[in-house]
Amino acid sequence: MAVNFTVFEDFRPVKGVRLGIAQAAVRYQNRDDMVILELAPGSSVAGVFTTNSFCAAPVQLCRKHMAAASARYMLINTGNANAGTGPSGFRNAEVSCDMLAKATGVTSQEILPFSTGVIGEPLNMAAFERGIPAALENLAEDNWARAAKGIMTTDTLPKGYSREISIEGKAVTITGISKGAGMIMPNMATMLGYIATDAGVSQDLLQQWCKEFADCSFNRITIDGDTSTNDSCMLIATGQSGLVIDDANSAAALALYNALKEAFQILAQAIVRDGEGATKFVTIQVDEAASQKEALDVAYTVAHSPLVKTAMFASDANWGRILAAVGRSGVQNFDLDRVQIYIEDVQIVQDGGRCDSYTEAAGAAVFKQSEFTVRIILGRGDVTEALWTTDLSHEYVTINANYRS
Amino acid sequence: MAVNFTVFEDFRPVKGVRLGIAQAAVRYQNRDDMVILELAPGSSVAGVFTTNSFCAAPVQLCRKHMAAASARYMLINTGNANAGTGPSGFRNAEVSCDMLAKATGVTSQEILPFSTGVIGEPLNMAAFERGIPAALENLAEDNWARAAKGIMTTDTLPKGYSREISIEGKAVTITGISKGAGMIMPNMATMLGYIATDAGVSQDLLQQWCKEFADCSFNRITIDGDTSTNDSCMLIATGQSGLVIDDANSAAALALYNALKEAFQILAQAIVRDGEGATKFVTIQVDEAASQKEALDVAYTVAHSPLVKTAMFASDANWGRILAAVGRSGVQNFDLDRVQIYIEDVQIVQDGGRCDSYTEAAGAAVFKQSEFTVRIILGRGDVTEALWTTDLSHEYVTINANYRS
Repeated sequence: MAVNFTVFEDFRPVKGVRLGIAQAAVRYQNRDDMVILELAPGSSVAGVFTTNSFCAAPVQLCRKHMAAASARYMLINTGNANAGTGPSGFRNAEVSCDMLAKATGVTSQEILPFSTGVIGEPLNMAAFERGIPAALENLAEDNWARAAKGIMTTDTLPKGYSREISIEGKAVTITGISKGAGMIMPNMATMLGYIATDAGVSQDLLQQWCKEFADCSFNRITIDGDTSTNDSCMLIATGQSGLVIDDANSAAALALYNALKEAFQILAQAIVRDGEGATKFVTIQVDEAASQKEALDVAYTVAHSPLVKTAMFASDANWGRILAAVGRSGVQNFDLDRVQIYIEDVQIVQDGGRCDSYTEAAGAAVFKQSEFTVRIILGRGDVTEALWTTDLSHEYVTINANYRS
Repeated sequence: MAVNFTVFEDFRPVKGVRLGIAQAAVRYQNRDDMVILELAPGSSVAGVFTTNSFCAAPVQLCRKHMAAASARYMLINTGNANAGTGPSGFRNAEVSCDMLAKATGVTSQEILPFSTGVIGEPLNMAAFERGIPAALENLAEDNWARAAKGIMTTDTLPKGYSREISIEGKAVTITGISKGAGMIMPNMATMLGYIATDAGVSQDLLQQWCKEFADCSFNRITIDGDTSTNDSCMLIATGQSGLVIDDANSAAALALYNALKEAFQILAQAIVRDGEGATKFVTIQVDEAASQKEALDVAYTVAHSPLVKTAMFASDANWGRILAAVGRSGVQNFDLDRVQIYIEDVQIVQDGGRCDSYTEAAGAAVFKQSEFTVRIILGRGDVTEALWTTDLSHEYVTINANYRS
């Protein structure tokens, strides 16, 4: 039951990127579960990865390969995360890259591996023997829609974004796909994101941008506070459109930057909209913080509070729970008398207490909406941060309690 | 549906403590909602309070009064937390103390106020006018059982502890009551604890002990990670038994220390057993940590993970979720290959991966128990910490989503 979610269908090919998809039967039969992205020579590739200390074998290997060579292929499987699998798991990831390297005539280091699915099970290597040649057979530029479905695990809907913009008279395409529903529910909902453009961007600049985009998109979404062992977000620039960004401060760079940022944000928000059991899409915005850290501490404490989340589910503007969450967020020397809290344009907390003009009816009207913003003004500085989250519903408990049982 | 919870009935009076209870109708009619504790002159009183920045008016006033005078009375109301109520809320707390001071002939500073209930509503002062004289009328040493019920809000069962021990040939009594079900659910489940002994302990030593006891009891329980604005835990020593602790390192002091610590732990655990929607009582123990901070970071991250909690509810020994929670707990330079995880005596994770001897059947058998310990061995040092928590059930969502709607 995704919230205000429209399935994206109008994918535009990105020159220099071909996609191949296969039913490899990694874990399940009769569904697409392997995706290969082929990148034209000279493409720049940037990535950000999970901060979980238990990062999975493919994440470790992906980082290693990125440091050693320019990527020519990405190899993605669902059904098995190859996490918590020790040295043999790492070896399996290497073998999967070796297979694809052999089939395509590149070196193994030019392959970036990604896995999502159950934790702790050995990777089914026979599936790679089956899947890799099958996926290579149908490599095509117009395969994004099928790839969006091919990387799904517990997602209820495929997630995509595509747009053509004109920069310096050149048509530039940005197309991306993402997946993820809870954070690691049921150890299968790793967040993955692949965004490609045919603009040309240097490796270093692309990596800097990728980090900045992730920090205002995939790193600002939270369903349940859990962080997967496999989260990866990749940004590809093939340069095939003819547009080359050679000055990071140029108008062209800014236009591309903003367009890519939008792609990241929409793909990240799609994950929240399709969050496990989500019935609400909620923006938590913190204004006037003294630092980014305290803004995020407050925002995440509110976003992760089960009491706030169940109140959202109940469409109950239970402002005391929001206030209490702000209060326990760990901000030092907090002058509570300066705190203002709004839900949309309704002020609920004024100077640390209930706003005189606030009525339960006005609060309930906002909380009944499927989408709204909670804005917390700290009165301590000028830093703003925002993140996106969902409510906590019976469906969330059902999904997460019923898996495997 | 409390977990392995036996209602305590055999309360022993504590010499020097009398309790009075009234139906003051603070918020609800026809239930005990006001409790007064009268302490004999010369009693020592120690307390620990919420760390929430939004601490309620009575907590602020209680601290102020404790710093200024020796307490003679505690005044507790349920139904209204007097939190988020601004300067008028603070004034109302003062007025309530003034009323009790006037009725008993002590100074207002000798009164300690406590409130629990809904946040953000003005305190009903007429209820204090009704309740205070009514409660004073029935002051008695044998009123603990009724007081245990009188401080309840959303608790399903009253929580108590009482024991007589012999120290240096003197009979010493320890009796206590507590309340709390979720952390602030539905803004009404503040944790309160009142433990009294007729041993004699100096104010300074009692305060030191109270902090130490709270840190291994009330500060080691978590239902949902939310911290109330009103949490208070008070320790009273009347000295009326004749036993006086004059050496903190004596055998008598050690015996009393251990007995009081047990009282704190049992009363704290009772809150978890009666946690909202709890079907499991789970101990999370972290061994071989390099510091207390990292031990607690790991323990709380596991205890608060909705994915771990729903797996517990489902009796599903989903060890990947535990591993992932450990991995995101923020411990620096984590050597995951040293991590071992046990559930009771079943090893599930060995050297950072699934234990060779582990079977789903063995794990499921433990997770089906209503009470079990998850033990996480970090292999980094010699610090151990433990805390107690519950699962996350449909009933939790129902309780917290249905209130007020």
